[in-house]
Amino acid sequence: MRVDGRQLDELRPVRIETDFIKHPEGSVLITIGDTKVICTASIEDRVPPFLRNQGKGWITAEYSMLPRATEQRNIRESSKGKVTGRTMEIQRLIGRALRSIVDLEKIGERTIWIDCDVIQADGGTRTASITGAFVALVLAVKKCMASGKIDKFPIKDYLAAVSVGIDQKLGEILDLNYIEDSSADVDMNVIMTGSGQFVELQGTGEEATFSRDQLNQLLELAQKGINELFIEQRAAIGEFADKIKVLPKKEL
Amino acid sequence: MRVDGRQLDELRPVRIETDFIKHPEGSVLITIGDTKVICTASIEDRVPPFLRNQGKGWITAEYSMLPRATEQRNIRESSKGKVTGRTMEIQRLIGRALRSIVDLEKIGERTIWIDCDVIQADGGTRTASITGAFVALVLAVKKCMASGKIDKFPIKDYLAAVSVGIDQKLGEILDLNYIEDSSADVDMNVIMTGSGQFVELQGTGEEATFSRDQLNQLLELAQKGINELFIEQRAAIGEFADKIKVLPKKEL
Amino acid sequence: MRVDGRQLDELRPVRIETDFIKHPEGSVLITIGDTKVICTASIEDRVPPFLRNQGKGWITAEYSMLPRATEQRNIRESSKGKVTGRTMEIQRLIGRALRSIVDLEKIGERTIWIDCDVIQADGGTRTASITGAFVALVLAVKKCMASGKIDKFPIKDYLAAVSVGIDQKLGEILDLNYIEDSSADVDMNVIMTGSGQFVELQGTGEEATFSRDQLNQLLELAQKGINELFIEQRAAIGEFADKIKVLPKKEL
Amino acid sequence: MRVDGRQLDELRPVRIETDFIKHPEGSVLITIGDTKVICTASIEDRVPPFLRNQGKGWITAEYSMLPRATEQRNIRESSKGKVTGRTMEIQRLIGRALRSIVDLEKIGERTIWIDCDVIQADGGTRTASITGAFVALVLAVKKCMASGKIDKFPIKDYLAAVSVGIDQKLGEILDLNYIEDSSADVDMNVIMTGSGQFVELQGTGEEATFSRDQLNQLLELAQKGINELFIEQRAAIGEFADKIKVLPKKEL
Amino acid sequence: MRVDGRQLDELRPVRIETDFIKHPEGSVLITIGDTKVICTASIEDRVPPFLRNQGKGWITAEYSMLPRATEQRNIRESSKGKVTGRTMEIQRLIGRALRSIVDLEKIGERTIWIDCDVIQADGGTRTASITGAFVALVLAVKKCMASGKIDKFPIKDYLAAVSVGIDQKLGEILDLNYIEDSSADVDMNVIMTGSGQFVELQGTGEEATFSRDQLNQLLELAQKGINELFIEQRAAIGEFADKIKVLPKKEL
Amino acid sequence: MRVDGRQLDELRPVRIETDFIKHPEGSVLITIGDTKVICTASIEDRVPPFLRNQGKGWITAEYSMLPRATEQRNIRESSKGKVTGRTMEIQRLIGRALRSIVDLEKIGERTIWIDCDVIQADGGTRTASITGAFVALVLAVKKCMASGKIDKFPIKDYLAAVSVGIDQKLGEILDLNYIEDSSADVDMNVIMTGSGQFVELQGTGEEATFSRDQLNQLLELAQKGINELFIEQRAAIGEFADKIKVLPKKEL
Repeated sequence: MRVDGRQLDELRPVRIETDFIKHPEGSVLITIGDTKVICTASIEDRVPPFLRNQGKGWITAEYSMLPRATEQRNIRESSKGKVTGRTMEIQRLIGRALRSIVDLEKIGERTIWIDCDVIQADGGTRTASITGAFVALVLAVKKCMASGKIDKFPIKDYLAAVSVGIDQKLGEILDLNYIEDSSADVDMNVIMTGSGQFVELQGTGEEATFSRDQLNQLLELAQKGINELFIEQRAAIGEFADKIKVLPKKEL
Repeated sequence: MRVDGRQLDELRPVRIETDFIKHPEGSVLITIGDTKVICTASIEDRVPPFLRNQGKGWITAEYSMLPRATEQRNIRESSKGKVTGRTMEIQRLIGRALRSIVDLEKIGERTIWIDCDVIQADGGTRTASITGAFVALVLAVKKCMASGKIDKFPIKDYLAAVSVGIDQKLGEILDLNYIEDSSADVDMNVIMTGSGQFVELQGTGEEATFSRDQLNQLLELAQKGINELFIEQRAAIGEFADKIKVLPKKEL
Repeated sequence: MRVDGRQLDELRPVRIETDFIKHPEGSVLITIGDTKVICTASIEDRVPPFLRNQGKGWITAEYSMLPRATEQRNIRESSKGKVTGRTMEIQRLIGRALRSIVDLEKIGERTIWIDCDVIQADGGTRTASITGAFVALVLAVKKCMASGKIDKFPIKDYLAAVSVGIDQKLGEILDLNYIEDSSADVDMNVIMTGSGQFVELQGTGEEATFSRDQLNQLLELAQKGINELFIEQRAAIGEFADKIKVLPKKEL
Repeated sequence: MRVDGRQLDELRPVRIETDFIKHPEGSVLITIGDTKVICTASIEDRVPPFLRNQGKGWITAEYSMLPRATEQRNIRESSKGKVTGRTMEIQRLIGRALRSIVDLEKIGERTIWIDCDVIQADGGTRTASITGAFVALVLAVKKCMASGKIDKFPIKDYLAAVSVGIDQKLGEILDLNYIEDSSADVDMNVIMTGSGQFVELQGTGEEATFSRDQLNQLLELAQKGINELFIEQRAAIGEFADKIKVLPKKEL
Repeated sequence: MRVDGRQLDELRPVRIETDFIKHPEGSVLITIGDTKVICTASIEDRVPPFLRNQGKGWITAEYSMLPRATEQRNIRESSKGKVTGRTMEIQRLIGRALRSIVDLEKIGERTIWIDCDVIQADGGTRTASITGAFVALVLAVKKCMASGKIDKFPIKDYLAAVSVGIDQKLGEILDLNYIEDSSADVDMNVIMTGSGQFVELQGTGEEATFSRDQLNQLLELAQKGINELFIEQRAAIGEFADKIKVLPKKEL
Repeated sequence: MRVDGRQLDELRPVRIETDFIKHPEGSVLITIGDTKVICTASIEDRVPPFLRNQGKGWITAEYSMLPRATEQRNIRESSKGKVTGRTMEIQRLIGRALRSIVDLEKIGERTIWIDCDVIQADGGTRTASITGAFVALVLAVKKCMASGKIDKFPIKDYLAAVSVGIDQKLGEILDLNYIEDSSADVDMNVIMTGSGQFVELQGTGEEATFSRDQLNQLLELAQKGINELFIEQRAAIGEFADKIKVLPKKEL
């Protein structure tokens, strides 16, 4: 039995609250179990220097945790004067993942800033960030299309992420909470599109390893979880849900 | 008429939601108009070096804004690698104010970390932070007393803060929102105790000045607003409300 | 009796030495008791980015202490790699105060850098900095007018600052030295114009509070001290003294 | 045909030169095609604070490039004053991978510092670093066993890493050089043990995605390449080669 | 003729004002022409970690310029967040030079902090700093001997520094001011003891070179200048002048 | 007898390997005894801001050590977030020295970046860096002349550097290794041109001093060593050796 009574292949309860913050072009509060992340998408009318005058846009992400999002208070990165390696890895991952399903030429010479701020953490903050950021991004695009800033719909596919892992006793499990994550032998983050393609796969055995068979079982679990996340995303996006590439029937 | 239809001496709607975040010893989401701040109080069982072995505790505060709490996205201070002067001023102010109404000897050799994270900003974030942080602090103390960590009630008085200012056309006004704050000639933050004493007074004429008479009128407005905030704080604190020094009748 | 034998409402001896340093457009060494600050005003022929092409200038200030200005040697902020919160607060205060009495359009698209370097500290360094910086500023303006850089006199009023405080035994006192400042219950910095208006008021009760009556008595003391500082400033400025808005008789 | 004439499943020439630098306990120069990395292993007789008094050791890695290891000169991270996100990701990966095949209790309360300094880069620097660092680590352990510092052999298995990717025209390819890496749709780094287990799997589609079938083909290629790297490592390690867990015949 | 009318081998007017600042154990204001440096010596009752428990002390120096010590305002190093290479070179030089004439065992496990703050610069700030710091150091030692902190006189010899250089038209010149320094082909700083030994010699041809003969002439000039500085130092030190190793007659 | 059996005036074995790294315009691995430095010269087609539009180029240098170039592992400067004073001194020295023998107008508005990365250290790393960097610079110039980027040969003279020092027992010695350097009373770095002129002279007595006679003997030793380094440089440069100002016979 899992620590919180879930089935091995069961997601925690998911809730995506849209327009949680008034200023950003797109914003959501995504809640997955006890993990809560505010995801916002902000439009800036210019691109970083390396992209200037190429007629295409950019998507970049930043990730942070409130100091007391966790059981023990963390020192703020602004107080330390630098961003940790973990934060950098996560924000690079979020940006890369979102860029994979956006036609950057259709957003024009603009930067979309994705901010993922974890206000309460209980495992899976990076996958929740990606899943929520996708919705915030779509909402921001919607606003830009309404105002005429963007005229061709640039979102190529759905995108969601989930963690899977191997517990020493229970075997492969879906959507690890903090306690499960701390004791898991193997931890894998899977990011997939609505059409069932992988965008990113990061599997790590910290002081442990995993076999090809185990990998296959983890990927099955991940696909199941991600399909359920797509349903939540569609509900949150509303009338725009069908503008995004319809998912092949076999997937849902 | 004020930009949002309020009377000159009218506060924006105030709401204090307790236990907003699960991990901290005390936490609230304080909403004042469109300004929303998560305030948490965390207990650490040691004091900074300069206080060691003196048998007393410490209260310190940190303040931050999410990048998109504001109309324009702000660069994160962690990305800049340093905290701005404005942030430093505010967090020093919050810490100082809370220390003034706590008997630091009664909390023992502990540090109470106050974190104020603005998730949506519309003026008055520092005064909302102080007003909310007071409640988070009381909740944390309550928890420590329940667990026996602290045995004597250390809160000496209520504490709340409000902004007042002088508008070129309207004259003295209470609780400025962002638009009012941007155009005000004079901006003053007033922090008071439940017994009607000043803890801190910061009045600034940016490219303007103010007379002794105007100061007196600003202080009257501030007292009115703060008395109303005390009522909200008492409601949020619940059964502990009367453990804190009863306010002299003339004040409420 | 005060620790240095002064009356409760007595300033320490004040001396303003002009042209103390040869390179800056304006410079003074201001001595108030044992507090000594070198204040310089430097003209730069451009404004910060946020002000470009608006036809007006800017005044900004920096403040620092020599490491051994104090009883204990302080670590240099350049060695720490960052400026402390206290320094930031003070330099923001100095800049804001000076901007309040200058017509920024009359100085054109220029920045006036005010540098206040404390070479010996005995309390009241921020108020001495403001009082001295005002004179350095006027001297720099004088030079710019002589060279034709500035053609309309931009100084709108006198400006000086003083500290007042409440001593547990003596009550309200004027111009606190370091020992008095360390033990005072309440510390207030008051910045006023020659016409008796407040520019900034910062009163703080560190682990203490103050009443409305005490506030009023502090303000009386401050007005007295500031009037005396104006006399020193006028003497230092020389022939330019009368170009600045004549002070209403009742004030002097 | 590949840009350098290789077969799709062909590694570039590999050379592992041991004892390249005289001071470190273990050091190699690993050359894979035109990629050259100096890998050293240094023993420090203490562990980081979070591990003290637990009777086990730690392995941590740092990674850097000489400024002109690349076609365009890179700004040194020491000049920038901070380490980039890419560097942090890589050094965290190297450390994690090596820890997975070492029995940390057998090295005692010591830290093994792995330094990977790329002196010439042509793609695959992180996988070359891991493959070379494994050898440097074994050499350092050898020295510690000779001197009696470590008495039980702590290496649990072989460890090597390789990159695989998907080229738009050629399909799946092994061991990408810089040109191939720049134009690949999908890039995957695979780290495996001598017993055929995965230690880490990082597959990324930058503005592209990949299917389950493609993943399987990439993993086949990676296994082939890694088996060849094990042969080079065994040769470099010399008499110690057989002290490490014998590889099951089916793998080689 | 030199730009300020001096002879080729003539020092600028030198003045050493002792006890310029009240808090430090030793302090001077040294004025050499238009160069003015506040030098202080502070005693700290502990040594840096690398010297602990060795029964000897340490001398370290810091150097800084006020932003407007120069013709153009310099950005403060505290604002930049780092110390420039030039500053580091100078402060390392000052510390090294002073350590050469002090018996570090006689000062016990103490650090003497030398702070040299240039308040007005006109060339030769590093040599003026050394010459002035020597006097501040002796004054601090005097105070420590009076209070019994130090019981054996630790100063082994006099120490002073001067710059010499080669002007394209005038040839070798002594004690360059800023204009001379800017146009000189060769610049050399010479630090010597009272007994005529070299402590440090730093000669640089920026986009120029110098011959052995020129070197010899520069060293003659330097010796002459330094002998004159010793006379000023002796006067400043007062009754302690003769406690320091008497200078051989031929030198003065 | 010297610790490694050399004569007092004997250089360690010198080897200059050209084109050690493939990407840079010029690169060498210089080995002097056990000191090994990779020196590269990179051409950038622009100059720093202070030189723009003046029709001349710039040469700047950076210096670093691999963490385990030394007996004890050093913390990387990128991890510390800042460059040490020692590194800054050395890189300023290298840049200055190379600029002295290059006609900067002949290289046009270009920056030549010199990178000296010590991969193994045994004393004399800064002098080896200069000696090697000179060759890398000539190789880069050669490439630029071949491609037509530079049309007039800009190298005015040879340049090499060596250390000399005074050992308490042996007296003056040439080319100190690490052990000798650590125990020497006096350490001097001498940089000379092929025509026998000094470019830079830095002699330091750390807690010691030296006389005029000793200085003269040190300079004789340095000249001997540098003449031998010129022979190695000529061999490394090949056909270009005679394009550089022929050395007067008396020198070799």
